[in-house]
Amino acid sequence: MRKERFPLQCIFCEIARDRAPSSRVLEDEQFIALLDIYPMRPGHTLIIPRRHAVLLAELAAGELAALFTHAARLGTALRRGVPCDDVNLIVNDGRAANQSVPHVHVHLIPRRRGDLARLLGKLVQRPVQPLLGGPPRATLDRQAAEIRAAL
Amino acid sequence: MRKERFPLQCIFCEIARDRAPSSRVLEDEQFIALLDIYPMRPGHTLIIPRRHAVLLAELAAGELAALFTHAARLGTALRRGVPCDDVNLIVNDGRAANQSVPHVHVHLIPRRRGDLARLLGKLVQRPVQPLLGGPPRATLDRQAAEIRAAL
Repeated sequence: MRKERFPLQCIFCEIARDRAPSSRVLEDEQFIALLDIYPMRPGHTLIIPRRHAVLLAELAAGELAALFTHAARLGTALRRGVPCDDVNLIVNDGRAANQSVPHVHVHLIPRRRGDLARLLGKLVQRPVQPLLGGPPRATLDRQAAEIRAAL
Repeated sequence: MRKERFPLQCIFCEIARDRAPSSRVLEDEQFIALLDIYPMRPGHTLIIPRRHAVLLAELAAGELAALFTHAARLGTALRRGVPCDDVNLIVNDGRAANQSVPHVHVHLIPRRRGDLARLLGKLVQRPVQPLLGGPPRATLDRQAAEIRAAL
């Protein structure tokens, strides 16, 4: 059997291969949804394909459809499970669009009425967020369980 | 025949019924892609379903798949037609997520390396952008033609 190819040090490939920790919300054969370790807002969730691809254009039609079907379903679950009022769905498709990890991921950002200033604060802070740290893993695991229960 | 229901004063319904102007990039039986009249970056494109729906959760599975298939295809066309380096794909799904028009729309924002400060400037400016105005219709029409040619 041919060895699966994957880029060195792609954190999402490491997660997909169970070589790095993650707080998972859902998973199937093709995709994993997990909590962002530096959430823009509480419950900030990412959906990634298991196989390595950088841009949306690299996904097959069926993969693309499944990815956004998951996104819509998760958007509904976040409203109940976080809970939140509404959700931003964002794909930064390419480095010039501020894609930080070069592996396709859909951001789902839970929003509450009037939290735009907080979101913008986190946006400005995001480049140095790894220095500031994120929530403890236990918090992410608990949030993931609550979102899973709302699916 | 039952009269089609649509909300009063929904600008995207008006556009879909050819009662308001638009600079269209593509259209089929279900969707229209058109240039945003207050672009965050040049070539900022929106994809809307012709029928009125507010949230992604109101779309059928097939509509959702078709919507994001168009989005991915347009992302590739924008890179050649605007041109730009990369693209942000954004859905503000609900009012608390800063959805300004209560009719589903996917934003495709063309990005160039190093333009984040300009984008954030437009983001701050966006609530008052109708007072400041947008590009002339002739400019939007020309950009739409260039993106169409790249499809």
